[in-house]
Amino acid sequence: MSKPYVVGIDIGGTNTVFGIVDARGNVIASSSIKTAKHSKIEDYIDELSTELDRLIVANDAKDKVHGIGVGAPNANYFTGMIEDAPNLPWGGKIPLADMLSEKFGIPVTITNDANAAAIGEMTYGVARGLKDFIMITLGTGVGSGIVINGQLVYGHDGFAGELGHVVVKRNNGRICGCGRSGCLEAYCSATGVARTAREFLEIRTEPSLLRNLHIEDITSKDVYDAAVAGDMLAKEIFEYTGKILGETFADFINFSSPEAIILFGGLSKSGDLLMNPIREAMTRNTLTCFKGKTRLLLSELKESDAAVLGASALGWEAKN
Amino acid sequence: MSKPYVVGIDIGGTNTVFGIVDARGNVIASSSIKTAKHSKIEDYIDELSTELDRLIVANDAKDKVHGIGVGAPNANYFTGMIEDAPNLPWGGKIPLADMLSEKFGIPVTITNDANAAAIGEMTYGVARGLKDFIMITLGTGVGSGIVINGQLVYGHDGFAGELGHVVVKRNNGRICGCGRSGCLEAYCSATGVARTAREFLEIRTEPSLLRNLHIEDITSKDVYDAAVAGDMLAKEIFEYTGKILGETFADFINFSSPEAIILFGGLSKSGDLLMNPIREAMTRNTLTCFKGKTRLLLSELKESDAAVLGASALGWEAKN
Repeated sequence: MSKPYVVGIDIGGTNTVFGIVDARGNVIASSSIKTAKHSKIEDYIDELSTELDRLIVANDAKDKVHGIGVGAPNANYFTGMIEDAPNLPWGGKIPLADMLSEKFGIPVTITNDANAAAIGEMTYGVARGLKDFIMITLGTGVGSGIVINGQLVYGHDGFAGELGHVVVKRNNGRICGCGRSGCLEAYCSATGVARTAREFLEIRTEPSLLRNLHIEDITSKDVYDAAVAGDMLAKEIFEYTGKILGETFADFINFSSPEAIILFGGLSKSGDLLMNPIREAMTRNTLTCFKGKTRLLLSELKESDAAVLGASALGWEAKN
Repeated sequence: MSKPYVVGIDIGGTNTVFGIVDARGNVIASSSIKTAKHSKIEDYIDELSTELDRLIVANDAKDKVHGIGVGAPNANYFTGMIEDAPNLPWGGKIPLADMLSEKFGIPVTITNDANAAAIGEMTYGVARGLKDFIMITLGTGVGSGIVINGQLVYGHDGFAGELGHVVVKRNNGRICGCGRSGCLEAYCSATGVARTAREFLEIRTEPSLLRNLHIEDITSKDVYDAAVAGDMLAKEIFEYTGKILGETFADFINFSSPEAIILFGGLSKSGDLLMNPIREAMTRNTLTCFKGKTRLLLSELKESDAAVLGASALGWEAKN
């Protein structure tokens, strides 16, 4: 391979993190800028280009970058555009791949953040060697990247893999950020866990450490801390969350019969508190012919590098 | 192509239908035997081989058959085996592909019946030219064949695509033939519609033509006939069924973002009675980014030929 590096860029609602990565998945150098600082996309691209170029020069990587991979919300692999991303400051359709490729003269490939995580896991993480798996990201929202027969599933329009918006409560479900109600994301994201906590605290009467906090300020981290401290109500909140995840995973298995479902993101670091109820509900609800075949795994990517690594893995397949 | 024909065999619980098919999808000749006549698989294979050989000789197709494709319940594409099919007389694992291939000296490929229908539709039917679609078979059960990027989804074990067993009623759902409860199949198969009819007749008080029948003998065909005759309760049964299908299809779209969902099987011939409520529920429940993108289509394969055609299409890819 003539060019030994790729660049990975992870565009989040708050920060944009980028780094230079070698073929073994080592992040040679990384940096970040604030995503929301610029309301005009051109100004954002200017700052990102300047900072990335500085990083490339400082690490003697000029003319050594094979491609740039970008993970971003609502990013379309086929069109190279970010399309109507509600959590980014720029509305409408942003031709991000073209804009970046013009700046750097290097091919750029983009996809949504959960797909980038799946590719990263397949290239550098626990999914190495797996041909059929589903990546579930449990963060502020619930995202997914589906790999079938070694290939990421993009669907006919580039947007496939929105498993966070499968409906888990058909009647009387919680309003979701997507405008519908009862979505998996409304229950099993970090914000979903906080909503469950508020619901439990209002309806239930047991004492709980969580009652010492302002109810509107409770986060999934607070629920985790309380559960670790032995709080029974907080533990039940994780059981409730894990049960919904496990039941839903059993349904996902009917679709693509994956070797593994891999969890990634903040909430996936909750350990047995979440994993035990997921595993139990998954086992109980899986169709007989699939029982015991699908492993439940945790991402192996180092948290600090994961987003950049996932995006960078796309850089290897970027073409002009 | 040196050999101009393929053979398609469709193994159902009652009948086994088989035929010789040319490259344009014309069924040159077909015949059938009773599946359940033989409790020993060897006897069944003997009769099937004798009858199929007779058909081949009678149609001057000896040494002109490229391959044999078989659609059968619980048939595994990877292993060539029928594995524990509850509706067939032979339990355990049946090495069907090897047994047939030995008899005929021709490569044999097998897959489950819904997958065969999807391949048939892609080769000869309404899915020609489509790369991403989901085939849903609405018969005695609910089956599915999922095509992503032009390839059938088999999953890591060959059993992917069991969408009839996605849970649509999490609490208080009907018992399903699979031993679990609340599955799509328990509501939206032909037998599911008959169950809904019995439930409606017991709980509701309105007059209905269906009340003239013995409640235990009511079939989905009776419900269809009553609805066509203007029976309001029968129409509501179709609305109830279609709503569940439409809601569930909206969830399936989140997975693979298909260009089309294609319906096949007896119940799919119910026309607007079923299609209108499906379409309405699908539109209302689809995530914004997918709205209006996925067409709802009906199979174009001639009913009498469909099963054999679907299986035969597999014969073209059969390899020793």
